[in-house]
Amino acid sequence: MDKNAKEKLNTQPYKGARDFYPEDMKVRNFIFENWKKVCKSYGYEEYDGPFLENFDLYAAKSGEELVNEQLYSFTDRGNRKVAIRPEMTPTLARMVAKKLNELAKPIRWFSIANFWRYEKPQRGRGREFFQLNADIFGFEGIEADFEVISLAIDLMKSFDAKEGMFEIRINDRKLMDDFYRKLKLNESQIKIVNKAIDKKTKISEEEFEEWLADEAKMSKPQLEKLVNFMENPYPTLEELLNEKSEGALELKNILNLIDKYKLNNLVKFSPSVIRGLDYYTGMVFEIFDLNPQNTRAIAGGGRYDNLINLFGEENLTGTGFAMGDITLQDFLLTWNLLPGFESECEYLVTLWPSEDTKFLEKTLEVSNILRGKGKNVSTWLEKNTKLDKQLKYADKKGFKYAVIIGENEIKKNTIMIKDMVTKNQSEIELNDEFSI
Amino acid sequence: MDKNAKEKLNTQPYKGARDFYPEDMKVRNFIFENWKKVCKSYGYEEYDGPFLENFDLYAAKSGEELVNEQLYSFTDRGNRKVAIRPEMTPTLARMVAKKLNELAKPIRWFSIANFWRYEKPQRGRGREFFQLNADIFGFEGIEADFEVISLAIDLMKSFDAKEGMFEIRINDRKLMDDFYRKLKLNESQIKIVNKAIDKKTKISEEEFEEWLADEAKMSKPQLEKLVNFMENPYPTLEELLNEKSEGALELKNILNLIDKYKLNNLVKFSPSVIRGLDYYTGMVFEIFDLNPQNTRAIAGGGRYDNLINLFGEENLTGTGFAMGDITLQDFLLTWNLLPGFESECEYLVTLWPSEDTKFLEKTLEVSNILRGKGKNVSTWLEKNTKLDKQLKYADKKGFKYAVIIGENEIKKNTIMIKDMVTKNQSEIELNDEFSI
Repeated sequence: MDKNAKEKLNTQPYKGARDFYPEDMKVRNFIFENWKKVCKSYGYEEYDGPFLENFDLYAAKSGEELVNEQLYSFTDRGNRKVAIRPEMTPTLARMVAKKLNELAKPIRWFSIANFWRYEKPQRGRGREFFQLNADIFGFEGIEADFEVISLAIDLMKSFDAKEGMFEIRINDRKLMDDFYRKLKLNESQIKIVNKAIDKKTKISEEEFEEWLADEAKMSKPQLEKLVNFMENPYPTLEELLNEKSEGALELKNILNLIDKYKLNNLVKFSPSVIRGLDYYTGMVFEIFDLNPQNTRAIAGGGRYDNLINLFGEENLTGTGFAMGDITLQDFLLTWNLLPGFESECEYLVTLWPSEDTKFLEKTLEVSNILRGKGKNVSTWLEKNTKLDKQLKYADKKGFKYAVIIGENEIKKNTIMIKDMVTKNQSEIELNDEFSI
Repeated sequence: MDKNAKEKLNTQPYKGARDFYPEDMKVRNFIFENWKKVCKSYGYEEYDGPFLENFDLYAAKSGEELVNEQLYSFTDRGNRKVAIRPEMTPTLARMVAKKLNELAKPIRWFSIANFWRYEKPQRGRGREFFQLNADIFGFEGIEADFEVISLAIDLMKSFDAKEGMFEIRINDRKLMDDFYRKLKLNESQIKIVNKAIDKKTKISEEEFEEWLADEAKMSKPQLEKLVNFMENPYPTLEELLNEKSEGALELKNILNLIDKYKLNNLVKFSPSVIRGLDYYTGMVFEIFDLNPQNTRAIAGGGRYDNLINLFGEENLTGTGFAMGDITLQDFLLTWNLLPGFESECEYLVTLWPSEDTKFLEKTLEVSNILRGKGKNVSTWLEKNTKLDKQLKYADKKGFKYAVIIGENEIKKNTIMIKDMVTKNQSEIELNDEFSI
């Protein structure tokens, strides 16, 4: 901590983190505002939790990879082990458990928050990202699963995303368990198989089969059945339905609702969707960009039944999902769905170049009057700046109008408004009722 | 990381951190939205930086107390020393330095962000808080200082705060330096005096004078002059003006503008305002709640001239301030300035209790229709729930209307809308043009 250090400080942000300059912030706000609007239209209420949580909260139920390799955790000055949130669900479960009896059920909540994971920064992923989380608690039926899928689709549509641009891949953890039972896999084999499936898009078909043969000790016929299931899952789904698999029936019912509401062109049953996190117990889904450049999931989620009981509470079933800002922004860029953003400030009130303080007084007064009329106004505050320089600034900033107040305007109690696009000027009297 | 731990997880958040339940989030959003609106009305553009920064960024210029006692810092998995941001200004300076040549001057920026400091949680302060930061770069004159003070006042007024509820105390670091020179204090004495003044409200008058006599080795006449100055600063201000003190002139000019715009009832010259952070070089100010229960500053800031040159860039003068959400919320509560918040969701579309799936289909269809008309709609999704229970839920959630669709309504293609306040019901035909 040498305060007289002559060394230059680096202007780069911490590795994997983003600076949001005003032009970046406009994109972020555009995404967040759409998220909020659509979630509210489904009656979801906004909440948030703290950025730091006690470490134990994640040790209990987040996936191993997340806790052992990606979590930012440290010991605070009071010797408490804390972690920076890598996901919202543990915080959400804690908050719901804390007020379980007061909260009217169903609970429909959403949040938009910043998360950190220690990862190698790459396309679609930084160490820091924002996520929308939307969850519904207290409805046991698959209708709630259908609602969160509908909400996810409406979120995508709110950005003008259309069929052919994205796809929802849906699966069911119970169905997978029934399938694994059918294959006669044991608990430790299942764990490895789930992990391999979760990583399948990142490795070759060969590597995938080697992994399962070597580590999960799967036999050739077992492996064949798994590969066939993943390539074309529908025959196995029918088999499982005939065998009264609860998971298969659950998924079939969700798919039926999806057909009925004509969302079947957007949703596909895919056993490749497992979700890395340990807490899912039923339906799981992910949203993918159909542009092959963008392989990371845009959103993902599912049903979890046992999160609240970690806090000693009775079970409360929940289903929900998260959508990330980085992969979504990549999606919007790929498909050219980001709008142009205009300057939110419309007016520059210029300052007539002079030593006479009456000009500054008038410039400040006019700025206040325009603000009083609901306008966003930037004021030039440096004396003796050539008007031309001030107008160039207005141009560069994309302001629509420049307000000019010279000697004549002061005498007549008027202002001159210059349209920065057409370059037309119009004089307006500063009386009580002028409108602008 | 014992995943089978039977121990109950604690539902409390990390010490000094807040959970934002939907009712808390409404207050937070109310504050943030007012902040954004007023900042935009002055032409300030929103930005944000990352939550984690390299540790060096704070070691360079933040106050010693902040870095040595309050900063959350740790070493990441790649052996980089990082810190959770305790304030925005270092990030802001880094971001401005990084794009100094591209950015049109003046730069008017604001951000609303979450910060952490390791402190004893107490009234008006948690370990975690949000702050609005608003800064203007590139205008050297005191007009920019006046603008940030005006902006701070308009922010307070946007919450309906009035004269008598709050007060701005203003000072100038250059003026203080001139005063200290007049007292013939050396550098190390000045440091101690500044620290004592900064803590003055938290200690007794006796403790204050002891501190200065013992640690700063101030003589009795020096001490007397200091105490007199702090009790009634205006005679010393006049003396300093006669002695051509640059700081006194600067402050006098700002006070003149404040008088001219009739803000003098809200702004008071007070040498007790020093600001703990090391980087201020000119005008400094703080906003105080005039209710004596609430002694922490609601906002504070000032002029800093040399922040960018830490990054090897030429000087760029800046002036700005931060306003904290916790102290502001205490202020709003004290003066009863928080409005009531209604439910953002207006409609519950109920589900007729029956095994027949046509009711669910109709309920989902009507929910979608209402959403298409811009309404926020919550849907009952559990089959066979008594209508009474559903209506009680709508009541508890504060929804304005419940939509009821029974056998008759399905036959007639209508919906029954029940006003939850008046209990009146009205039937509406579900044709293409119905309005609601």
